[in-house]
Amino acid sequence: MFSERIDRLTSSLIREILALTQKPEVISFAGGLPSQDAMPILDMADVPENLRQYGATEGEWELRVGLADHLAERGLRCKPEQILITTGSQQAIDLISKLYIDKDSPVALEAPSYLAAIQSFRLFGAKFEELPLQADGIDPGQMDHLFARARPRFAYLIPTFQNPSGVCYSEAVRAAIAEVIERHGVPLVEDDPYRDLMYESVDRIPVCSRLRKGAWMLLGTFSKTAVPGLRIGYMAVSEDVFPYLVRLKQCTDLHSNRIGQWWSARFLKSPEYAGHIEGLCDFYRERRDAMQAGLLRHFHEIAEWEVPHGGLFFWVRLKRVCDTRALLVKALERNVAFMPGEPFFANAANGCYMRLNFSHSTPERMEQGLTILADVIREHFAKVAEEPAVDFAM
Amino acid sequence: MFSERIDRLTSSLIREILALTQKPEVISFAGGLPSQDAMPILDMADVPENLRQYGATEGEWELRVGLADHLAERGLRCKPEQILITTGSQQAIDLISKLYIDKDSPVALEAPSYLAAIQSFRLFGAKFEELPLQADGIDPGQMDHLFARARPRFAYLIPTFQNPSGVCYSEAVRAAIAEVIERHGVPLVEDDPYRDLMYESVDRIPVCSRLRKGAWMLLGTFSKTAVPGLRIGYMAVSEDVFPYLVRLKQCTDLHSNRIGQWWSARFLKSPEYAGHIEGLCDFYRERRDAMQAGLLRHFHEIAEWEVPHGGLFFWVRLKRVCDTRALLVKALERNVAFMPGEPFFANAANGCYMRLNFSHSTPERMEQGLTILADVIREHFAKVAEEPAVDFAM
Repeated sequence: MFSERIDRLTSSLIREILALTQKPEVISFAGGLPSQDAMPILDMADVPENLRQYGATEGEWELRVGLADHLAERGLRCKPEQILITTGSQQAIDLISKLYIDKDSPVALEAPSYLAAIQSFRLFGAKFEELPLQADGIDPGQMDHLFARARPRFAYLIPTFQNPSGVCYSEAVRAAIAEVIERHGVPLVEDDPYRDLMYESVDRIPVCSRLRKGAWMLLGTFSKTAVPGLRIGYMAVSEDVFPYLVRLKQCTDLHSNRIGQWWSARFLKSPEYAGHIEGLCDFYRERRDAMQAGLLRHFHEIAEWEVPHGGLFFWVRLKRVCDTRALLVKALERNVAFMPGEPFFANAANGCYMRLNFSHSTPERMEQGLTILADVIREHFAKVAEEPAVDFAM
Repeated sequence: MFSERIDRLTSSLIREILALTQKPEVISFAGGLPSQDAMPILDMADVPENLRQYGATEGEWELRVGLADHLAERGLRCKPEQILITTGSQQAIDLISKLYIDKDSPVALEAPSYLAAIQSFRLFGAKFEELPLQADGIDPGQMDHLFARARPRFAYLIPTFQNPSGVCYSEAVRAAIAEVIERHGVPLVEDDPYRDLMYESVDRIPVCSRLRKGAWMLLGTFSKTAVPGLRIGYMAVSEDVFPYLVRLKQCTDLHSNRIGQWWSARFLKSPEYAGHIEGLCDFYRERRDAMQAGLLRHFHEIAEWEVPHGGLFFWVRLKRVCDTRALLVKALERNVAFMPGEPFFANAANGCYMRLNFSHSTPERMEQGLTILADVIREHFAKVAEEPAVDFAM
């Protein structure tokens, strides 16, 4: 007899699609895979011998110091003692679920939101309270009402180059929601994996940096800017929650691998780091622009979208209602993968979306893939042509 | 407001003591730290570039194949498809907690048992049903009664060089408990980190290998025989539970670091592997013998113990009742650390024990540490001399 939470363990589209993308013939717009061509060299020739031993649960001191400096440059002041190294950012989500969620605990989050966070929160029994995303972020007034009504255990937000929508909160929204969060004393979980992948200059000071009291947790990772295979993420958190998160991590995997921490610390403080990020942004900006051009060519009649200023995704809204999971099956028959929009909505899906990643494919394969995908969508639309077109409110 | 499980998140002695052992002046018998002098060289000069990318949740195929062969040599037949790579063996415990434990779910385990497993099971709300350990293992008849009465979600056992007791189940007990487990259909979790650290030849075929039906999970690790800092463990499991564990791992940390998996796979199939294990056993046998000699010199009047045939620990029973946590405070004042016995009992502690690790200290430091520790104990006993000595039944 399994635990009751296993009833909520949905099969994961990400997992099954990541498996498919390993086939070389598949053009994948599905995962959030960085391009290997843009990753730094993994020089491991001189790993220190003492890193073979067990390490501290909190993480390697050198990396924590480096990250405190890194975050200070980005507007968040915290001490190295407030940084916990995690086994990828996904582990931070697991630890937060453990810290806050009982069965039917209310959790506030954006609609849409990151599907692997939704999966973890759901596994632990969360009751989702959604905040619809608009072009400049969520509505602070709506958040105020939601907090008063639902008293969520925490708010999970991705204010900077949101996954999947690409939305980046404006400075005005950041200021307003910080005020609401502080007034209600709701802990803030700010998931922030895409901060450094910025293609145009926009507001992006962490919301956490505006909070003068209450619990806050900023989640970061090296997976999008450096080497995902090392599985090194981190949390910068307010002092009140740190000891709990450390003990939870100890129960979860004792500590994260030390070689990956050592490499990440060295990379972060290397003179090459700033240039690497700049080069990465140039590289991905070009791919974003290639996808925008491809979408304009092939999708202008069938979909709507905004050009994201950062991150790794286009969030494309189809002009007709359809089940994008059925579309995915058709697309995969023609060796193209994308991420259906439905699983990004914690409660009921709203509209008909697909998430398209632009970091992984070369511009040539991207063009090929978008052509096929547009064909598949048009064929599908032709079948449902008798139904009227719909106009979704965002 | 935290989750209700946080009330059960005990502060961890292991963690606080591991922190202390980083001071060079402390002689530590506390942790299960392997000796760095016995670890293989971590040659990372030629890490393949493709390992920088995200990997599969199940783990690297080459490592899973290598482990299937490795386990077959040890008596457990399973396919590579049944092996899930974990972020240390501790993660396997976390995944099992998630799979099986709701609040007040009964879990059967040895008394004493591994304290970090107890902590994880407790965090998820387990109600502990204990099976007292004897010299040759647990009592199959008692297990039969316990299963009939309590219907545990699973049984967590460490049959080979048990932590903390050092007990290795006899072949007769292994056969008898396999029969009981199969008859009741209770899933078996066999934690097996010490299998290859064997100093005299004893029965040690995995109990899982005797099960022809029902769910089973064998937990292994590279942390005790190779490089703990890499955080690579694994589970070999029955086919019925594999898909659930993979999905749970995906929610937990997506996948384990690929560099560590690559290194472990290469090490496992290298011609040096067998010789390394043999050398490691010689190295630790010598340290075990040194601790036995030291205990005979300093502890014969104050304690009782068995000589372990494998693993990393002596489990020492003091001849007078005392709080070994108070003893630890006194010992730390004199720069000696050990692990108090109390936290190894899931319910009430039974008797007065200390766990002494023999892998980490050199024989010279060991002698010095045991001398101090015996002094501390004798001083403590002198204070409680008015109380009668007690004779514990094991």
